[in-house]
Amino acid sequence: MNESSKITVFAYSKDQFEEKRVKKVEEALNYKEYSVVWINIDGIEHLEELKRIFGFHDVAIKAILRAKSRARVAILKDHLFILLHQVYELKGGLKKERTAIFLKDNFVITLQERSGDVFNSIRESIRHGEGIFRERGADYLTFALLDAIVENYVPILENISTQMEVVENKVLKNGDKDTLRKIHGIRRRILFARRTIFPLLEVFRRLRLEGKEFFTEETQGYLEELYNHVMEVLDIIENQREMASGLVEIYYSTLSMKTNDIIRILTVVSTIFIPLTFITGIYGMNFNSKISPYNMPELNWYYGYPITLLMMLAIALGMLYYFKRKEWL
Amino acid sequence: MNESSKITVFAYSKDQFEEKRVKKVEEALNYKEYSVVWINIDGIEHLEELKRIFGFHDVAIKAILRAKSRARVAILKDHLFILLHQVYELKGGLKKERTAIFLKDNFVITLQERSGDVFNSIRESIRHGEGIFRERGADYLTFALLDAIVENYVPILENISTQMEVVENKVLKNGDKDTLRKIHGIRRRILFARRTIFPLLEVFRRLRLEGKEFFTEETQGYLEELYNHVMEVLDIIENQREMASGLVEIYYSTLSMKTNDIIRILTVVSTIFIPLTFITGIYGMNFNSKISPYNMPELNWYYGYPITLLMMLAIALGMLYYFKRKEWL
Amino acid sequence: MNESSKITVFAYSKDQFEEKRVKKVEEALNYKEYSVVWINIDGIEHLEELKRIFGFHDVAIKAILRAKSRARVAILKDHLFILLHQVYELKGGLKKERTAIFLKDNFVITLQERSGDVFNSIRESIRHGEGIFRERGADYLTFALLDAIVENYVPILENISTQMEVVENKVLKNGDKDTLRKIHGIRRRILFARRTIFPLLEVFRRLRLEGKEFFTEETQGYLEELYNHVMEVLDIIENQREMASGLVEIYYSTLSMKTNDIIRILTVVSTIFIPLTFITGIYGMNFNSKISPYNMPELNWYYGYPITLLMMLAIALGMLYYFKRKEWL
Amino acid sequence: MNESSKITVFAYSKDQFEEKRVKKVEEALNYKEYSVVWINIDGIEHLEELKRIFGFHDVAIKAILRAKSRARVAILKDHLFILLHQVYELKGGLKKERTAIFLKDNFVITLQERSGDVFNSIRESIRHGEGIFRERGADYLTFALLDAIVENYVPILENISTQMEVVENKVLKNGDKDTLRKIHGIRRRILFARRTIFPLLEVFRRLRLEGKEFFTEETQGYLEELYNHVMEVLDIIENQREMASGLVEIYYSTLSMKTNDIIRILTVVSTIFIPLTFITGIYGMNFNSKISPYNMPELNWYYGYPITLLMMLAIALGMLYYFKRKEWL
Amino acid sequence: MNESSKITVFAYSKDQFEEKRVKKVEEALNYKEYSVVWINIDGIEHLEELKRIFGFHDVAIKAILRAKSRARVAILKDHLFILLHQVYELKGGLKKERTAIFLKDNFVITLQERSGDVFNSIRESIRHGEGIFRERGADYLTFALLDAIVENYVPILENISTQMEVVENKVLKNGDKDTLRKIHGIRRRILFARRTIFPLLEVFRRLRLEGKEFFTEETQGYLEELYNHVMEVLDIIENQREMASGLVEIYYSTLSMKTNDIIRILTVVSTIFIPLTFITGIYGMNFNSKISPYNMPELNWYYGYPITLLMMLAIALGMLYYFKRKEWL
Repeated sequence: MNESSKITVFAYSKDQFEEKRVKKVEEALNYKEYSVVWINIDGIEHLEELKRIFGFHDVAIKAILRAKSRARVAILKDHLFILLHQVYELKGGLKKERTAIFLKDNFVITLQERSGDVFNSIRESIRHGEGIFRERGADYLTFALLDAIVENYVPILENISTQMEVVENKVLKNGDKDTLRKIHGIRRRILFARRTIFPLLEVFRRLRLEGKEFFTEETQGYLEELYNHVMEVLDIIENQREMASGLVEIYYSTLSMKTNDIIRILTVVSTIFIPLTFITGIYGMNFNSKISPYNMPELNWYYGYPITLLMMLAIALGMLYYFKRKEWL
Repeated sequence: MNESSKITVFAYSKDQFEEKRVKKVEEALNYKEYSVVWINIDGIEHLEELKRIFGFHDVAIKAILRAKSRARVAILKDHLFILLHQVYELKGGLKKERTAIFLKDNFVITLQERSGDVFNSIRESIRHGEGIFRERGADYLTFALLDAIVENYVPILENISTQMEVVENKVLKNGDKDTLRKIHGIRRRILFARRTIFPLLEVFRRLRLEGKEFFTEETQGYLEELYNHVMEVLDIIENQREMASGLVEIYYSTLSMKTNDIIRILTVVSTIFIPLTFITGIYGMNFNSKISPYNMPELNWYYGYPITLLMMLAIALGMLYYFKRKEWL
Repeated sequence: MNESSKITVFAYSKDQFEEKRVKKVEEALNYKEYSVVWINIDGIEHLEELKRIFGFHDVAIKAILRAKSRARVAILKDHLFILLHQVYELKGGLKKERTAIFLKDNFVITLQERSGDVFNSIRESIRHGEGIFRERGADYLTFALLDAIVENYVPILENISTQMEVVENKVLKNGDKDTLRKIHGIRRRILFARRTIFPLLEVFRRLRLEGKEFFTEETQGYLEELYNHVMEVLDIIENQREMASGLVEIYYSTLSMKTNDIIRILTVVSTIFIPLTFITGIYGMNFNSKISPYNMPELNWYYGYPITLLMMLAIALGMLYYFKRKEWL
Repeated sequence: MNESSKITVFAYSKDQFEEKRVKKVEEALNYKEYSVVWINIDGIEHLEELKRIFGFHDVAIKAILRAKSRARVAILKDHLFILLHQVYELKGGLKKERTAIFLKDNFVITLQERSGDVFNSIRESIRHGEGIFRERGADYLTFALLDAIVENYVPILENISTQMEVVENKVLKNGDKDTLRKIHGIRRRILFARRTIFPLLEVFRRLRLEGKEFFTEETQGYLEELYNHVMEVLDIIENQREMASGLVEIYYSTLSMKTNDIIRILTVVSTIFIPLTFITGIYGMNFNSKISPYNMPELNWYYGYPITLLMMLAIALGMLYYFKRKEWL
Repeated sequence: MNESSKITVFAYSKDQFEEKRVKKVEEALNYKEYSVVWINIDGIEHLEELKRIFGFHDVAIKAILRAKSRARVAILKDHLFILLHQVYELKGGLKKERTAIFLKDNFVITLQERSGDVFNSIRESIRHGEGIFRERGADYLTFALLDAIVENYVPILENISTQMEVVENKVLKNGDKDTLRKIHGIRRRILFARRTIFPLLEVFRRLRLEGKEFFTEETQGYLEELYNHVMEVLDIIENQREMASGLVEIYYSTLSMKTNDIIRILTVVSTIFIPLTFITGIYGMNFNSKISPYNMPELNWYYGYPITLLMMLAIALGMLYYFKRKEWL
């Protein structure tokens, strides 16, 4: 087995199974007597070869080459072409990579941008003859591959949900600038997930409607189940979107409430002390009380100072009572 | 009757009725001569057995096992599979649990995650021969089970409405942080209810369109009624959603109004006393009036102090009049 | 004629007309020789009797009994069942009441929760042989009844529009808490109207599509007209909704603007007087000018006081000029 | 020609043309030998006469009489009925008026609420034999009339766009209360235009689908073009709506930014002078320095005053530096 | 070759190729023996000539002449007419120009408002016999032209994305008035792009459904690919829209946070110094302590001044501790 080769052939029938790494796509044709031949290719270097050998349509090749391709299904002459994305987290953001699946006769060809491990459990099942793979045809394998990819979206979404709960708790306690950035990041990721997964609805809807010649009735039941699964995933995303925009609203509200708190403190302190300071200002004036009995006679009263202090205390208490009644304290 | 067993068989014909707790699903087959055999199973342990005995499709089993399954209907070869959710309140939040209904020939099999009492009234009716159960077939029983589940959504929604009214009154009086958290909680519950109940529209639409081989024309009338019922429930939810987002807006407004109030008080007190304090500041200066007749001659005027006080009073009254006219007081 | 009875029979042919209050629905059967027999029943006590006599479907009875039923149409075996709502204002809120219409052969049966007067003009027309009632069959009467109910929505909506204009003027002048409550109330009413009237679209759409066996081609033209009428009513409601949410935005804006105004006053007064007060503070200090020529020599200047006053005046004017240029005054 | 009469007949064939003002609709029947007879009626007084002569359906008459009728098309027995609105500006608001078009055999009858000039260019073309009017039948004239009305919406919308740009510039400079009112007015007008023009989509869609017996294949091409035209107009309106709600957001933002500016000034001035004033307050206290060497010895220092001034200057400069670094100045 | 002429003919068969600039459209007819004749015309002066020679339908001509035409496709008798827009950036805004494509037999006629270079790569491919152009018919050329236009939208959108990221970084740092204007500009451009590109969905949908007589099955596969491509472009635009409105929200939030910051500083400084200043005010009063032992005895205490200073320090520290605990510092 050549370790550096990126083409792997899984060929199996009811009672037989062979797995081999090959260098050229052509070598896979030797296995065509098996019921199912799955050729898994990492990277997109062998596209031309595939086109030549299997006669895949030009538009499929084009779609794989375009970096921003949308998930899609196409029935092209004698083969079925499905393009969809695997989503994974990378450095705090989400990334997606294209995965192409061709179904032609008993051949299933999968192309992945980089070697991933989403299909590992399927590989294991085939190797050890688990499940019903060996009893079914290439259409069931196609279903299983699609199922593995869709199944893989769920932990990504659960991760987002967890992050959202963390942020939600923070927001409800106190909302700093960092929290805002985090909410923004989460919304980005939700939008990304939605944009990637939404086209799958159309893909599975068309598979159900138009894929009858490629799938046995049995497998069609599974495809319908897959459609439901995508609906569930989209339900979760829709929900997360609403919750995230609810988070923004709460964020605003806590911000406003904080401003309110701050201003209330300012107002309470100011409105209590400003009048008092005014009074001290009055008795700090230098009017000449020797010239006239009307000029600040209070300064020379026997109880002038204590009376003034008491008066100020009364004002302060009155204010405090007023604020208390207004529930500002 | 074995009390620990979780499988209950209700078998009835026009004139006969038998109810029994059994240990194995197989025992239920003994009753197949009755017009309708309803097997109610609490828990999902007997799925494999069901599959073996009745030949239920793999995808139905898979859908039941997945925790986040969406409500759905599927016509699978010779049996009808319906999955939907019961919603109940638990510790201030909403929870849902899957309920699966299989209809095959004269057998109706229901699976519930935990033993609930939604179907109790149906059980009673069958036991006592009330209603038209005994005159109708398994399709009518299926309708009745669906009806019971849908009927059960209504009190949940009414509960939300009641909570919303309580919060609404609070918001219109004064909006504290707690109120915000409550609104947030209510919106969460509304979103949850919508997400759970919305797929039912599709379920009943498909039952109407595709379920013709399973339901008599008579029962189809009932199914249509059920569809209408779900529409009504969704109408209520949609309304609650709009009212809840209206609540958030009111909450903001009252918050802004409160800030307004606080700032107004601050402004009124400040703008009245700051100029007055400035005046007291002037006459508190220590310019030497002995050196020059221009240095604070007011201090030595006979009516200097009372004139100053009157001047300050005039300014204060003028300000108050101004604020009154601006409707700030 | 028995005044306490709530069942009224209107029977008419081209040249004949009879009107009678009866006690039992059965008595109405005596008039079946007329072209059209309209049985109007106030209250829902006679449902069982209707079911027995005319064989109305169970689901129709159920729909009438449920308090929150949605408007709907159902073709049930040999009869047509229409349920819709009359809307009226009660104590500042909107209320709705169910009205059921059955059409079977030449019989039109209407059930109202409480005796209303929406159908009075129709009654008058029939009594006096006006319009084309007597020339047409039971289907035209059905149309006329539907038309009367839809027609009745218009004044309700015009009332809302009037209220909205009143509030709009208030909001643009000044927005107090009461205004907010009023906007909230109006939105509630609009939502209510929409929720009640929206299902009618579906009702009339289905009548057009499926009601062909009950309506002559002539009357179908009228039904289409009715559909257009409901669309018009919904257009108005949609418009009111947008205007109402526009109102909320204006309300916010005026609130913000008010806050702006208040803070501006505070800022202008504060920034003018705070520096001035600082200056008075300086010359109010008690540094001993006898000890050192550097200690507040200004106090002993000949023009110290007037220069200080002029300086303060200059600062104040400068500030005012600055605020003027910023358009804050 | 009777000038006071409001009924005008345009009758033309390939080589003939006659134009006449008549008093009664009946007179128009004299021209029925022409290929096309266009009867234009200002006002709705002659409806009964039309009904009698041409046998127009009752619902068309009803729709014309109702003031709030929606645009619609109806195929009524042997004639086609189209109702749509002309929109014009009146006193700063938008008004609409109903225009009805009947097409029956070679007769085209148009009814306008008030005599307008939208059709003038068509009249001119017919009079002078321009265009292809004379070569085509009544269906092409119908198309041309519809086209003239749709064409007329464009300047109205361009007017709104111009107003919006004016307001947009104002908002970006400074947003006063008047601007808010203007934005509100523009949104009202956009809503009005949308509500009036949107139903036309349905009208032209149905004309395309159902109007085949009234329009030659040739003219159907034109109708499709008209449908596209309405789509374009609605695109513009949709765009204007989004821009208008963008305007409101900008308005809010500038308001918030203004508040920010005002508060910043207040904060800068206050936080600089309040501590300074506190210092002057300290040295304005009257503690008796003769009694104790601890009582305000600074007052008797040789450089007490200049040191204090320098200290205050340092504080002020420090504050300014702080605010500068925070980009508040 | 006439350089000033704006009509270029590209005629090619499997083994032949000719390219010529001609003065009149008629000259192009000489090449009709080639498998494909592509006539590219810059400017719209030759419309009448085209109509005369090829018999193009009037509505196509009209659609090209109207400045605000929407993208569309029309099957007109024996020719296919497609109108769509090229989008390019001009002075910081987006502009669009109409491009019309006619397909009739082996003739492809393209009209552009101004001579652009979108089709250059196609020209090169034909000239040098690259790709599969020469092997395919006029329908494939039509596809390639459409593809070139759609392909050209992508860099425009990527440009918008880049601008958005720049602004996003600015907003998250500090949001000044200029940033708001930039966000507004970006939203405008996104709306513009959406409005221009959205109708293409309908265009390609109809081409798929109705264009069967013009396109070989092979080319139809390409058209479907094109449809997917437009979907991708619209996905990007939709995403950009959501991100842009997210930007506005962040902008608001940072603005609010800034206000919060400013007010917090004001509140902290004010609430610390205002009470302290009040205390200095008290001991600045001039009550005559010689007259009464109750009049400000503190002034004559031995440690009066230091005690007062310490008291003030204690208050200030207490305040700071309070603010620290509230996380305001």
